[in-house]
Amino acid sequence: MVRVGIVGASGYSGAELMRILSVRKDVALVAVTANTSAGQRVDALYPALAGSVDLEFRAYDPAAFPDVDVAFVALPSGQGMGVVPDLLERAGKVIDLGGDFRLKDPALYEQFYRHTHTAPSLLPRAVYGLPEMNGPALRTASLVANPGCYPTSAILGLLPALKAGIVKPEGIVVNSVSGISGAGRSASVEMSFSELNENVRAYKIGAHQHVPEIESALRDGAGTPVTVSFVPHLVPITRGIHTTISAAWTSPVTADELRELYASAYAGAPFVRVTGSYPQIQSVVRTNYCDVHPTVDRRAGRVVILSVIDNLVKGAAGQAVQNMNLMCGFPEETGLR
Amino acid sequence: MVRVGIVGASGYSGAELMRILSVRKDVALVAVTANTSAGQRVDALYPALAGSVDLEFRAYDPAAFPDVDVAFVALPSGQGMGVVPDLLERAGKVIDLGGDFRLKDPALYEQFYRHTHTAPSLLPRAVYGLPEMNGPALRTASLVANPGCYPTSAILGLLPALKAGIVKPEGIVVNSVSGISGAGRSASVEMSFSELNENVRAYKIGAHQHVPEIESALRDGAGTPVTVSFVPHLVPITRGIHTTISAAWTSPVTADELRELYASAYAGAPFVRVTGSYPQIQSVVRTNYCDVHPTVDRRAGRVVILSVIDNLVKGAAGQAVQNMNLMCGFPEETGLR
Amino acid sequence: MVRVGIVGASGYSGAELMRILSVRKDVALVAVTANTSAGQRVDALYPALAGSVDLEFRAYDPAAFPDVDVAFVALPSGQGMGVVPDLLERAGKVIDLGGDFRLKDPALYEQFYRHTHTAPSLLPRAVYGLPEMNGPALRTASLVANPGCYPTSAILGLLPALKAGIVKPEGIVVNSVSGISGAGRSASVEMSFSELNENVRAYKIGAHQHVPEIESALRDGAGTPVTVSFVPHLVPITRGIHTTISAAWTSPVTADELRELYASAYAGAPFVRVTGSYPQIQSVVRTNYCDVHPTVDRRAGRVVILSVIDNLVKGAAGQAVQNMNLMCGFPEETGLR
Amino acid sequence: MVRVGIVGASGYSGAELMRILSVRKDVALVAVTANTSAGQRVDALYPALAGSVDLEFRAYDPAAFPDVDVAFVALPSGQGMGVVPDLLERAGKVIDLGGDFRLKDPALYEQFYRHTHTAPSLLPRAVYGLPEMNGPALRTASLVANPGCYPTSAILGLLPALKAGIVKPEGIVVNSVSGISGAGRSASVEMSFSELNENVRAYKIGAHQHVPEIESALRDGAGTPVTVSFVPHLVPITRGIHTTISAAWTSPVTADELRELYASAYAGAPFVRVTGSYPQIQSVVRTNYCDVHPTVDRRAGRVVILSVIDNLVKGAAGQAVQNMNLMCGFPEETGLR
Repeated sequence: MVRVGIVGASGYSGAELMRILSVRKDVALVAVTANTSAGQRVDALYPALAGSVDLEFRAYDPAAFPDVDVAFVALPSGQGMGVVPDLLERAGKVIDLGGDFRLKDPALYEQFYRHTHTAPSLLPRAVYGLPEMNGPALRTASLVANPGCYPTSAILGLLPALKAGIVKPEGIVVNSVSGISGAGRSASVEMSFSELNENVRAYKIGAHQHVPEIESALRDGAGTPVTVSFVPHLVPITRGIHTTISAAWTSPVTADELRELYASAYAGAPFVRVTGSYPQIQSVVRTNYCDVHPTVDRRAGRVVILSVIDNLVKGAAGQAVQNMNLMCGFPEETGLR
Repeated sequence: MVRVGIVGASGYSGAELMRILSVRKDVALVAVTANTSAGQRVDALYPALAGSVDLEFRAYDPAAFPDVDVAFVALPSGQGMGVVPDLLERAGKVIDLGGDFRLKDPALYEQFYRHTHTAPSLLPRAVYGLPEMNGPALRTASLVANPGCYPTSAILGLLPALKAGIVKPEGIVVNSVSGISGAGRSASVEMSFSELNENVRAYKIGAHQHVPEIESALRDGAGTPVTVSFVPHLVPITRGIHTTISAAWTSPVTADELRELYASAYAGAPFVRVTGSYPQIQSVVRTNYCDVHPTVDRRAGRVVILSVIDNLVKGAAGQAVQNMNLMCGFPEETGLR
Repeated sequence: MVRVGIVGASGYSGAELMRILSVRKDVALVAVTANTSAGQRVDALYPALAGSVDLEFRAYDPAAFPDVDVAFVALPSGQGMGVVPDLLERAGKVIDLGGDFRLKDPALYEQFYRHTHTAPSLLPRAVYGLPEMNGPALRTASLVANPGCYPTSAILGLLPALKAGIVKPEGIVVNSVSGISGAGRSASVEMSFSELNENVRAYKIGAHQHVPEIESALRDGAGTPVTVSFVPHLVPITRGIHTTISAAWTSPVTADELRELYASAYAGAPFVRVTGSYPQIQSVVRTNYCDVHPTVDRRAGRVVILSVIDNLVKGAAGQAVQNMNLMCGFPEETGLR
Repeated sequence: MVRVGIVGASGYSGAELMRILSVRKDVALVAVTANTSAGQRVDALYPALAGSVDLEFRAYDPAAFPDVDVAFVALPSGQGMGVVPDLLERAGKVIDLGGDFRLKDPALYEQFYRHTHTAPSLLPRAVYGLPEMNGPALRTASLVANPGCYPTSAILGLLPALKAGIVKPEGIVVNSVSGISGAGRSASVEMSFSELNENVRAYKIGAHQHVPEIESALRDGAGTPVTVSFVPHLVPITRGIHTTISAAWTSPVTADELRELYASAYAGAPFVRVTGSYPQIQSVVRTNYCDVHPTVDRRAGRVVILSVIDNLVKGAAGQAVQNMNLMCGFPEETGLR
């Protein structure tokens, strides 16, 4: 029985973690913290968890935090680095769902996240938690930087084509549309129903903190510098990301050839499905799957890759549990079907 | 008093035309045809029009169609060319909301629309009905090819930058997300609520019939061949298109410089607003506005232009009325505020 | 030219008022106040109004408020009574869209609104602004209490049957579902997209402030005490209310008889349509119509009446303009088609 | 290992059954039939099931249907009775998700379903599959009539109050709003996204086939004749039913007393949660829970009960599996957490 705790459990990623972990018989969820909801029962905030999670939120206090084997950190970026060093000493295995340990270069972190990094000495130790890319390293990792939601969809979509040299590494255009839960559980006019319903809008063009994450991971995975122009958009759905990637081909290729390449690249990946038709968010919602579909725009000489995930599952909590499974020696798919 | 008729009035574009025209005091709507709804009152099919449109649909019969000054054709592509020649003789002014007269080259039409063109002799006479591009020609036009919804948003977004030589005319990536009404009023599992709600999916990559329309209009407007890679998507909203355009810049430019260029290009256009912040579909729904916002992704060396319209208004019926206003000598904005 | 001002113009009702009034040629909108958005341009907060409303919000200052013929007050309930006395002296005609002047009995007001009434001496002077009930009185009114959104739909649905003695005045059950804009423009987790989308929930059962408003108006209109059990619900749409009313019949009646009774009751009402089929929110969105459909559940011996409105138009701003039209001697429908 | 088959598996209830059953290790899904999709792979129609269900749909042919221990029938009402007699002989245990075996009286069936009943001799044998009411009988049943979605929510909401004599059995008003998946997977303009989105409408008032089902079950459960006036509505969500029940109380009661009564009534029911606050559809979506909240409208002297379920889970496939668990001797909750 693996004992786990969640620090920052009251947001949507934390709730999704609780939902996934609460049905596991090989895992005991022993503590959930949330400073703003301290003293409140979990099922008062999330009635859906009534009958499944019999805990109340506590404020995070390192001294009072129980012994756990694995600690998940689901705090906003900038706050994770404040608790990770301590948790790492005590728990031995830490999975941070925020952005604080995803970039190896603290300067790049500070440029995009607008915080000074307070635990840079841990950065070399952090393993980027994309199992399809870093599976072996994850099996022995102590600190895992769980990928961002947009990067998960973009990297899984691009990596095979880049590694195979089929697309040019510069001038790549990545357009994503995301469900609103990606913005977290927050009180603002901007995130209110009436402002987002029947609406679509872009945000943070060229400035989103996921840009350096995408580029770094692709460079590490493909062994070549990569530039992407990334435009995220909000669409009125609760969950899901649809990413459309456009890259100039290096020489003509067919959709069938691409599909074979991708099928082969992901042959051993239990949560990536290379689809024969255009993928849909509906097919992956509430699952840990990433559905990927590579195709071509022959007239324009470009490869177009479509990739969909549930931002809270494969884009956050599900992938975190997949990483936990690897770190703890469980079968990779445990609890994620 | 201008007498108008609508052929193919029972679809969403036809209904929107009726809605817009029914409040005009200078226009008399005298006939609406719809073969599948013949004999049915308009307000039985569209209860929203009760009290505004006191007509019933008839089957289209050239012999029985009343004398009108302007005929709108809102039939599916492939059917418009069957009625336009006759209507042109009788009405003098015809505005086709379908795709049959948008491409000058019948071979290109046949490649993308999969129909043989049966009225190619009229193609030279058709004026492409984008007032911001072809205003003067529209004032004397007898046959107007009303633009497609995606092309309206893409062309208005790209034209100023292309004309000014600020972006490269090749390697342009156009991603659009559209509300479902763009697919028309139709009975299919694919278009049913449960299949589209909480979902996003792409379709017709590299094969959409609006690709040659976008490229042709941009070539005509900018005087240079243009290649775009266009990916349309469906998102669960009823109305609206959000188009995100990405093009490599020819040399560095700032967002402010772009905004000035666009403001100047659209200074005389009553229905294009160059916005200071990212545009939103909500701001243009049920209006004839196109909100355009040009900006840059400096790191990637690209110009990014966002453009939003209501697909049924500026993308169809509203623009058709704007064209009618020009053709009939009404002030351009009449009935569209 | 009638000069009008809006106090509390930054909420959704205020924005809708600006939208409706800005296209009027016989009305000049000269001032809009909003304490929280003071100094901001209207089109910065509502980009949809760019090109239509060239004003900025000011803080409300009685001394600086310009001379107007009509003042609309769109403040939250409890705040309207603070400004109405002064505005009434200066403007002569005041229309309050909040709840402060709808109930004649200050004790009842205080019970349901949880505020002490600070201007009870004005209550006798206030005319309840439902034109279909109080048309003549509204033509000479100086202070109009514009009805609440739920009451508008419930009263228009029930009044003819009650007046005709067809249904019992006790044991009436009113269930309404409302779009989210009815809750106003506000920052709260509860009103955020992810909490409301794909969700339905009831609220304030037996305690909603619209209960005494519905009962008072029905009693005044039908001349008999009335008890309703009212359950409001939120559904994930932006605009619209669908109200389902169930009342025991006094003796058997047919749907046809009911429809004739209602058609006759609303023969002179330009904004009430008695429909032949079940009404839909879609038919009235962005219009000032109330569509009403009375029918029967023969087995259960009950009359069932369905009633739909747009909560921001007939349920707020549109009805306020309808009232202004009556007060100022304009044709009732001006600017509302 | 229990071998199961599904007849009529291509609709939404069938797909949900496949989703639930495919993760069971104690159940083997060996056949799925669907005449209209015969020859198609399950994951071609439902890409979400790729990797989970490795079957193709076959036309239903009694001769070729494999030996199973349990047969689920998910055909439209009127078609189930054509296959159930044969399946009953071969499988021994049949669970019909349609309406053909829910009413004991064939005349009542014919009145509401508009079909002649072709297997009336099986009606006495059918057990109404609401485990919270008929648990013991279900453990030995061979033919189970799985309840309708609306009845599940209405009966679970009303039964404790009726049995305790707290509400009057006549004049009960039941208002339900349902997600669109309840209407099934079908091609029609009426069910298309653009017609249902941002819309609410009632249907089949006093004529819905679930009315006699609700009344019969309540009469059987409470031992007294019951009359309900039921109004179903469609709201733009995919899944979920929210039912609001209003009944005159027999004598004053408090919300606390009601809650205790209900908590006690459902003490042994693993899938009914009596909630302390108003229940929400979001809390039960994709679960087999029914959340029930009884309260009072003191002014009106009425008990108001709110009840929410997922129409495809507790309202169809989940409840069917709950019944299978009982029939086969599995723990009731197996595979439903």
